[in-house]
Amino acid sequence: MQYQHQKLANGLVLIGEINKSAKSTAVGFFVKTGSRDEINGINGVSHFLEHMLFKGTESLNAFEVNQAFDKTGAQFNAFTNEENTVFYAAVLPEYLIEVTRLWAELMRPALRDEDFNIEKNVIKEEIAMYKDLPSFDVVDRCRTLHFDGHPCGNSVLGSKDSIDNLTAEQMRAYFTRRYAPNNMVFACTGNLNWDQICSTIADHCGTWIEQPVIRELDHFDGSKKVQRIKKENLVREHICVISSGVPAQDPRRFAASLLGTIIGDDVGSRYFWELVDKALAETATMQFGAMDGTGAFYSYFSCSSENLSKVLATVNDIFHSLSKDGITKDELIKAKNKVLSALVIKNELPMGRLVDIGLNQIYLEQYRTIEDDISAINAVTIDDVHNLIEELNPDEFTQLTLGPVQNGG
Amino acid sequence: MQYQHQKLANGLVLIGEINKSAKSTAVGFFVKTGSRDEINGINGVSHFLEHMLFKGTESLNAFEVNQAFDKTGAQFNAFTNEENTVFYAAVLPEYLIEVTRLWAELMRPALRDEDFNIEKNVIKEEIAMYKDLPSFDVVDRCRTLHFDGHPCGNSVLGSKDSIDNLTAEQMRAYFTRRYAPNNMVFACTGNLNWDQICSTIADHCGTWIEQPVIRELDHFDGSKKVQRIKKENLVREHICVISSGVPAQDPRRFAASLLGTIIGDDVGSRYFWELVDKALAETATMQFGAMDGTGAFYSYFSCSSENLSKVLATVNDIFHSLSKDGITKDELIKAKNKVLSALVIKNELPMGRLVDIGLNQIYLEQYRTIEDDISAINAVTIDDVHNLIEELNPDEFTQLTLGPVQNGG
Repeated sequence: MQYQHQKLANGLVLIGEINKSAKSTAVGFFVKTGSRDEINGINGVSHFLEHMLFKGTESLNAFEVNQAFDKTGAQFNAFTNEENTVFYAAVLPEYLIEVTRLWAELMRPALRDEDFNIEKNVIKEEIAMYKDLPSFDVVDRCRTLHFDGHPCGNSVLGSKDSIDNLTAEQMRAYFTRRYAPNNMVFACTGNLNWDQICSTIADHCGTWIEQPVIRELDHFDGSKKVQRIKKENLVREHICVISSGVPAQDPRRFAASLLGTIIGDDVGSRYFWELVDKALAETATMQFGAMDGTGAFYSYFSCSSENLSKVLATVNDIFHSLSKDGITKDELIKAKNKVLSALVIKNELPMGRLVDIGLNQIYLEQYRTIEDDISAINAVTIDDVHNLIEELNPDEFTQLTLGPVQNGG
Repeated sequence: MQYQHQKLANGLVLIGEINKSAKSTAVGFFVKTGSRDEINGINGVSHFLEHMLFKGTESLNAFEVNQAFDKTGAQFNAFTNEENTVFYAAVLPEYLIEVTRLWAELMRPALRDEDFNIEKNVIKEEIAMYKDLPSFDVVDRCRTLHFDGHPCGNSVLGSKDSIDNLTAEQMRAYFTRRYAPNNMVFACTGNLNWDQICSTIADHCGTWIEQPVIRELDHFDGSKKVQRIKKENLVREHICVISSGVPAQDPRRFAASLLGTIIGDDVGSRYFWELVDKALAETATMQFGAMDGTGAFYSYFSCSSENLSKVLATVNDIFHSLSKDGITKDELIKAKNKVLSALVIKNELPMGRLVDIGLNQIYLEQYRTIEDDISAINAVTIDDVHNLIEELNPDEFTQLTLGPVQNGG
């Protein structure tokens, strides 16, 4: 395993982790932009722009983009979240340069008016579809409630209205500001020739123009508001609870991730034994989400209207008992085993590894080996977790319930 | 990469592919039994039995099974299909022996009456849930229509009636017949100590008793029946088309897999350009499914009622043009790249590799390296694909449409 790093004159950072014993390779562009960077009424533009990159460039139309990927046999895709837009592909070594060149070209899209207008409908359909998924909708709405006016509460998809009002001109201006080379990272992993990759990227991306880029947000503790929304056609209660966490740059992120696992892993967690195993809730999970300069714990529950107050009381009991009595040694060991095995298994694939090295560069401007992360997780003590609980007050949270109209709850 | 193989006196086969540079390990039991082995009114027993293995043994209850997995941090699961029931876990090397011992114990479950009766409701809920997924339901029904009375047409989940009628006694008898050591394969991959694994398995599984095991089916060409079913609440047409393929043991399986990709891959295939890109269908895919002694190509389409006849006519045109003009060199190259990259990427994970070496042992009683499969795929010629088309007559197929009541179609 060999790490490589280079920076072009325009600020574009290239990183690679070369593994000559791998049989595949992975490659990706990480753009440090997402819904939290969408200010002044352009909510949803990052995700919409991600779609538009597949519509082609000045010299390639959407049909040709499709055919070009197809030829390489690549498994390719993209995703947008609150802070990043990531474009990636896993491919056999012999097609790596071809796929790299293709992505580099697509990073300078045509953003044609006619494509923009057609794609607008696709985006609105996607928004409508997700609105019908209460497990998604409740978290999306609760994030907005928690961040209470801060851009971190922006929905990734945007709303029907924000998309209706968005113009192609606004998208092009956003593109110029955010897809600047100094706001992007190019990453590659697996069995590859670093020098060849570097010259391909320099050829295609060296002329991109640097821009002043900013992102504002200090840590925010959350609104701690409580809200209940009734919705036609629902048969279950969907509850989201968000409490304050630590940022992606904070060394305590490993302790936070273990705490999330202890409280809300799918199986064997406090939520599991108190809520799912006792058949009070069908689903009860918690995940720690680290962000740039801030962070949060997200819990999601689904249950019958009958059980709603019991579920909420149990969640309160769990948080209070954690504050009072802390966690057990056994819980910490189990959580470490789960977090470590998930980490190692994910990173065994060049594709999984790509995302980790890319995000470490984005958030930490640092290369970390898997062994660095394993050591950091192993080093977390019970006291570390207890200090975190004391500081974060997980029993102070924002809460949103989405439930059937029939119930008064 | 080092291959190991051992056979216990009772017929249990142990195989391992050791990779000292892997960071994780995977382990699994492959039981050569599935819905096609469910004769005399016990349809659904294999899948139900898979659930029952998690309910515990004479010395462990379900709670303790859950806790035992939890302690190791393993990512574990099981699946049942027409021919196999597979139990597997991916885990860090230091917990491999513990997880192996646990699976070996679970392979001799208590099958308690009270657990059986409770789990029956869970299974019936799962059946009801899948009945509401038309994309699943149409394929399930079409398989039954295609195999026309042959046990290969049995539904994996069974029906509400078959599960209602099933007794714990019937399940125990089926278990004894089918979970015999000579009808199972134990497999492991990744960074592991083979001798230690073998002695663990010999300790736990050496006393299991060999049984006479049979599975009957000659190759079957399919009924080629055409059926249309109307269903309340549907808004789209769901169409399944099944035509005859080659068995898992047939060297032509690689050509068949390439043909499936050329005709019906998600993107860039004949179906994609003729149906999805032209907006006639939202979904249009084909997959080759190789089975023990037989095989089939499964196509699935969804479209509006308006477009139904146009979609069916286009599918017919595609098949006729393949029979008449064959495939192009370019199509074969693209399909090879896709199939090869999917194969290599999947096999890079010990968990993905586990399934491939396990199934090769089950179907071929043979060890194949990834390189063996890569060579076999690269060796397929245009003539191989053309011979397959000529022999299989893909334009003769069984067809089932599940559509809204409103439409006369």
